[in-house]
Amino acid sequence: MAVYTEVPDDEVESFLTEYDIGEVLSLKGIAEGVENSNYILHTTAGNYILTLYEKRVKKEDLPFFLGYMQHLAAQGISCPVPIAGKDGEFLRTLCGRPAAITAFLDGMWPRRIQPFHCRALGKTMAEMHLAGANFPLERPNSLSVSGWEQLLEACEGKGDQVKPGLTRELEQELTFLSANWPDSLPKGVIHADMFQDNVFFIHENLSGVIDFYFACNDVLAYEIAICLNAWCFEQDNSFNVTKAQLMTRAYQETKPLTREELEALPILARGAAFRFLLTRLYDWINHPAGAFVKPKDPLEYLNKLRFHQSVKSVSDYGITL
Amino acid sequence: MAVYTEVPDDEVESFLTEYDIGEVLSLKGIAEGVENSNYILHTTAGNYILTLYEKRVKKEDLPFFLGYMQHLAAQGISCPVPIAGKDGEFLRTLCGRPAAITAFLDGMWPRRIQPFHCRALGKTMAEMHLAGANFPLERPNSLSVSGWEQLLEACEGKGDQVKPGLTRELEQELTFLSANWPDSLPKGVIHADMFQDNVFFIHENLSGVIDFYFACNDVLAYEIAICLNAWCFEQDNSFNVTKAQLMTRAYQETKPLTREELEALPILARGAAFRFLLTRLYDWINHPAGAFVKPKDPLEYLNKLRFHQSVKSVSDYGITL
Repeated sequence: MAVYTEVPDDEVESFLTEYDIGEVLSLKGIAEGVENSNYILHTTAGNYILTLYEKRVKKEDLPFFLGYMQHLAAQGISCPVPIAGKDGEFLRTLCGRPAAITAFLDGMWPRRIQPFHCRALGKTMAEMHLAGANFPLERPNSLSVSGWEQLLEACEGKGDQVKPGLTRELEQELTFLSANWPDSLPKGVIHADMFQDNVFFIHENLSGVIDFYFACNDVLAYEIAICLNAWCFEQDNSFNVTKAQLMTRAYQETKPLTREELEALPILARGAAFRFLLTRLYDWINHPAGAFVKPKDPLEYLNKLRFHQSVKSVSDYGITL
Repeated sequence: MAVYTEVPDDEVESFLTEYDIGEVLSLKGIAEGVENSNYILHTTAGNYILTLYEKRVKKEDLPFFLGYMQHLAAQGISCPVPIAGKDGEFLRTLCGRPAAITAFLDGMWPRRIQPFHCRALGKTMAEMHLAGANFPLERPNSLSVSGWEQLLEACEGKGDQVKPGLTRELEQELTFLSANWPDSLPKGVIHADMFQDNVFFIHENLSGVIDFYFACNDVLAYEIAICLNAWCFEQDNSFNVTKAQLMTRAYQETKPLTREELEALPILARGAAFRFLLTRLYDWINHPAGAFVKPKDPLEYLNKLRFHQSVKSVSDYGITL
C-alpha cells in the first residue's frame, strides 16, 4: 500500500481545468498499487482514478499502457478507460510526475478464489487476447526469458540467504528454460500480471481488469500459464485441477488453443513460476528497511516451480488435449 | 497513511446486508487517518466511509464520538454523519474490530493555509461549540493538564535524546501550567484536534470537519488555543496575526468570548503547544522502526511553546479585548 507523491488541493484543482469532467470535490489517496500513487478523485461528474506514475514505470512505456487500455475499452473489455483532456491528450504532468485520469471501475478483488472466479477469468482473458489482436503498438516483455539472466545476476547470489541452495537451483532452471522455451507459439498483447488483486468482481460477475503496467507482446498461452500459477494453487500449495479446467475451458470456448499451445503449458507454467520467484527474490533482497510495501514471499513460487517441474504433461493440470 | 485491518470482499458484502444503503460495488482502503483503518465504500446508493477502529481508540469512547457527530449533523454542522443499520445501531463489529459507516464528506484539506481558511474555521468552530451545548454525553479530556504528568513520565527522560535540556524544560513548563491553568472558564464539547488535515474545503468554503476521535469536554477557549497553534504559524515558525485576528473575529461574530476567555488565551495556547509537543515526543520516542506512519517533529511545537511563553498579553496575537 502506498501513496508516494502527495497531490495538494490547489494543484489538483488547476489540473482538472484541463479536463471536461467537472470540478474536484474530493481526492483521497488509496492504499492500493505498489508501483504508482493512486487517488480516488470525486468530481461533480462522478468518481475517477488519478494515477501518478512513479519511478518503476518507464515514461516511454505509458503510451503503450494507456493506449492498450483505451483499445480494450473500445472493444467492450471492462477496464479503467483513460480519460482524455480537452486537448485530446491522456497523459500530462502533475507534481513532477507523469499522470493520467481513468474511469473508476467498480468491483472488488476476490480474497478467496473460488471455481467460478477462474471460469470468468478464462473467458475474459480470451476476450482480451482477441481484442488485443489489432492493437498497433508494441512492447517487448522485458521480464521474459531474455531478461531473466540479468535479473538473476542482479540478485548477486543472495538467493542462498533466503534458502540454502536456491541460487544454484535457479541457475539450473534458467539453463533448462532457455534451452527449451517455445518461441513459435501464437503471440499477441498480454496483461502479464493478471493476479487476483487485479481482477474485480461484483458477486459472481467479473466487473473488470486493472493494472496494465506490465502489459506487453508475448506468447498468448504464457498468460494462461501465469494464471495457472496465480489462481489455481490453494494456500497449502496444492494444485486445484477443477479451477485449471474451468479456466482453460472457458478460455477455449471463446478462443480455442492449438495443440502446440496446450502441450507447451507445462514449460510455460514453469517459466511463469520462475519469473515471479525471481522478481520476488529480487524485491526481497532489495527492499529498503522500513518500506511501506512488504515484499511477497519468494518461496511460494519455488513450491509452484517444483510442482511444474514434476508435471509430465498438460493432463497433469486436468486439461485434456 | 495506513490501513491496518484488511476487509475481504465477502465480509463487507455480508456486513452491508445489515444496512439500507444498497449493495457494495467497491471498497478501497484510503491512505488517511493515523488511528484507524478507513475505506471508501461505493454502493449502489453512493459513496460512504467505512471505519474500523484500531487499538488506539477505546471502544467505550465510541458512543460519545459517534453520538457527537450525529448530534452536530442534526444541528446542521457538516461532518461525517454516522449511518444507522436496519436495527438502528451505528456501531457493530467487522473483522474483529468495532466498525461504523459514515456519510462521505466532500472537500479537501488545505495544504497551504490562507487567511480565508482561518476565517471560515473560526465561524465553524463557534457553531460547533454552540451546537454541542446540549449534547448529553460526557468524556473528560485525558490529554489535558491532569494527563500531562503521566505522559511526561512515560517519555522516561528521553526528551534529551531529541534535544539536550528538553526534559527539564518540559518539567518546568508543566509546573507552571499546573499552577496557573484556568479552570473556571466556560466548558463544553470540543473537537480537540482541529488541525488542517481534519477540515475540508471546496474552493473557499469550509465543507466539513472530520476525525472526532479526540473530542471531549473541556474549556471551549482551549479549542481556539489549539487552532492558534495549528493554523496561525507560518512554515518559518513566525506567528501570523492576520490569521489569528480573522479566526477569532469570525468566532466572536457567532459566539462572543468573555474577557476572561480572551485573557486566558496566552496560557491556553501555551498549554496546547505543550500538549502537542508532549504527544509528538512520546510518538517520536515510541514509534516502531519501519512503521507506516512517520511521527511528526516534536520540535515544531517547542518553537511554538517558546513563542507563547514570550507573549505578554492576548494583544500580542493581534487580538483586541
